[in-house]
Amino acid sequence: MTDLTALQYISYGIYLVSSFRTSTEPGAQGRLNGQIATTVFQVSAEPPLVAVSLNCQNFTNELIKASGKFSVSVLSQETPLKFIGLFGFKCGRSVEKFSGLKYEINPSGTPKLLDHSLAHFDVEVTQAVELGTHTLFIGKVVDSQVLAEGIPMTYEYYHKIKGGLIQQNAPSYIKF
Amino acid sequence: MTDLTALQYISYGIYLVSSFRTSTEPGAQGRLNGQIATTVFQVSAEPPLVAVSLNCQNFTNELIKASGKFSVSVLSQETPLKFIGLFGFKCGRSVEKFSGLKYEINPSGTPKLLDHSLAHFDVEVTQAVELGTHTLFIGKVVDSQVLAEGIPMTYEYYHKIKGGLIQQNAPSYIKF
Repeated sequence: MTDLTALQYISYGIYLVSSFRTSTEPGAQGRLNGQIATTVFQVSAEPPLVAVSLNCQNFTNELIKASGKFSVSVLSQETPLKFIGLFGFKCGRSVEKFSGLKYEINPSGTPKLLDHSLAHFDVEVTQAVELGTHTLFIGKVVDSQVLAEGIPMTYEYYHKIKGGLIQQNAPSYIKF
Repeated sequence: MTDLTALQYISYGIYLVSSFRTSTEPGAQGRLNGQIATTVFQVSAEPPLVAVSLNCQNFTNELIKASGKFSVSVLSQETPLKFIGLFGFKCGRSVEKFSGLKYEINPSGTPKLLDHSLAHFDVEVTQAVELGTHTLFIGKVVDSQVLAEGIPMTYEYYHKIKGGLIQQNAPSYIKF
């Protein structure tokens, strides 16, 4: 008897995963984009590798596939729901999500969010594994930095304390 | 400037990941084994796939490679440190870790821990990705079950509230 609610007992954080498209590619305008993700994990100690699973339909997935690069921001517990709504529930194909936010551009081209962000790492993709509805990107941490003191937001905190919703495109979304 | 302590801001749970070896294999005795893992995550919604990263030197890694199967137990916040010490810091090659514990054997052959366990899922490996010090096992959830009410133990809780240590073989272990 398979009860998939069992999978909801897995613990996750809340992260911003970002990538970019340069304007030097023919026919394409330079763009930044990012999305909220819960499934960011360190998967090897030496070399330091991280993995993230993103829905195949998401714009950030498309940008990472094209650039081979992404950055991760660990969001603080204080991050406003409005920010999570923008990056978690709007599509970057029609909205310039970084507009009005404090950020820098890493040497790799990815954005480094300075608002709401406790820690940041910049990642070069080494493998992209296609898994049904999602792509699992595995990559090497090429730069990492602690940006601020604070408590990282967990999915548990976001959902229970802040009353936040989960996106249907998340790998851990279960339809009833 | 790369500061790998930034990776410690990622949120993890605490899980028991188990596998087995049947006695029908020539020259091998039937065995169960399990280890504490922090990097269990759902990586696809449809089909429901989970991933776990385990150190290449660990006995459980060897058993999963041979059987193609593993089970995951989501441990309760109430799990005693003694249990985590047994499964997290002792090697199953020399210790029969399941001895004295309450468990059942799944139809697949993996053990289903009944003690300290809030939720359980049984997984068939679809891909094993070698990543330096670790193997990332990706697999299909073939059975899943909620076993008890309670709060899942997070790594944060284990480390800060219970005063637990981290194993040097964990993917998120950083040597200073």
